[in-house]
Amino acid sequence: MNITILGTGMVGQTIAAKLQELGHQITLGTRSVNDTLQRTAANPMTGTSFADWHATHSGIRIAPYQEAATDADLIINATSGAGSLEALRGVGSKALAGKVLLDVANPLDFSKGMPPTLFVCNTDSLGEQIQREFPEARVVKGLNTMNAYLMMNPQLVPGDHTVLLSGNDADAKKEIVRLLNSLGWKEKNIIDLGDISTARGTEMLLPVWIRLWGALGSPEFNFHIARKVPVEAAV
Amino acid sequence: MNITILGTGMVGQTIAAKLQELGHQITLGTRSVNDTLQRTAANPMTGTSFADWHATHSGIRIAPYQEAATDADLIINATSGAGSLEALRGVGSKALAGKVLLDVANPLDFSKGMPPTLFVCNTDSLGEQIQREFPEARVVKGLNTMNAYLMMNPQLVPGDHTVLLSGNDADAKKEIVRLLNSLGWKEKNIIDLGDISTARGTEMLLPVWIRLWGALGSPEFNFHIARKVPVEAAV
Repeated sequence: MNITILGTGMVGQTIAAKLQELGHQITLGTRSVNDTLQRTAANPMTGTSFADWHATHSGIRIAPYQEAATDADLIINATSGAGSLEALRGVGSKALAGKVLLDVANPLDFSKGMPPTLFVCNTDSLGEQIQREFPEARVVKGLNTMNAYLMMNPQLVPGDHTVLLSGNDADAKKEIVRLLNSLGWKEKNIIDLGDISTARGTEMLLPVWIRLWGALGSPEFNFHIARKVPVEAAV
Repeated sequence: MNITILGTGMVGQTIAAKLQELGHQITLGTRSVNDTLQRTAANPMTGTSFADWHATHSGIRIAPYQEAATDADLIINATSGAGSLEALRGVGSKALAGKVLLDVANPLDFSKGMPPTLFVCNTDSLGEQIQREFPEARVVKGLNTMNAYLMMNPQLVPGDHTVLLSGNDADAKKEIVRLLNSLGWKEKNIIDLGDISTARGTEMLLPVWIRLWGALGSPEFNFHIARKVPVEAAV
């Protein structure tokens, strides 16, 4: 598949590297290709500059948002939540029309200090904001309730644990389930919560996720939905 | 222990019956004892009226809020979130001073239809509101992320799953851990998130909990925090 990832930070890099390894053609979308390639300061999350990372992942194309998305079979929003709508406006509604858009971002607001709050929640969500502004995109919210390394490698945490999906388009969710399966996520650990308004619930997991990171001293954990009656495939 | 439970609905009844079975002296606190005992309509959650329930649990004392709490070793807030502060004002700050108050309520707002939203979240929580208004109470938020039957019987859902605790008073949290142990909750499945402000996170789990109930068709599930490195006891 041609997969375009919006966002060149730790999350975008982690997703890009893994999906390339699985044989996909990867394009990273960014506002300015030159600015991104000239970033030589080390990313505090990865310890590596974008330029150094790209030197070891040279098969990954870098392109401006709109160009990056035009021929994509799948678009993944891995920008920061506060920058997601602006990035998607850079892609444009024409390039988004009809495309499956996996939204892994969260509406984290760091402007009031730590821990971050959410800039939208309870009666709305970032997933819904994106779907409303780009009604022809087939938005699926998912993987936003865990660390990027775990998104791409569920075996990092032993045993069963869960991916929650939200979206209005059943076929788009099926495409994402296939992608998740290829990453090692088992059907029984993928739960379809329903339409995109259920993204409120998954985005609102972030405050406890952040506190769990503090309490456990590591981001290498995930929510598992333990059930009385095990479900073999919930989608 | 003398345990006082505020709230006479399904949650209060379920907690009262189990803790009586474990040998505790139970008092249910209510606004008006007469009104509560004269409730003959079936509770939609239990299918039984309060009067019929009480006839089979006659060892459980019913008393007005303040009287119910005066000699309590432990107070459990099992009122609806929207009525919690009013019920606690009925108890009064004098009867609450120095007492461990386990708050299992959630700030659910049903006034705008289904699914409910939260009447406080993101930058504040019901747990914090209670602790602020009654600074001498030793508030512990916990068990609010699951169904009442599961609170009292973790074996209802097989395998490991998690109770999250929040509170400013370390000794009060230890007392709640001992109570949880007596109910069958293992130390390794109890996570102390930190001070009472971490209750924001656990209360914000409710929107996804409600959607999971819909998606799974049953409330018999719980969040488990799956970890790379298992923790034998997090408290």
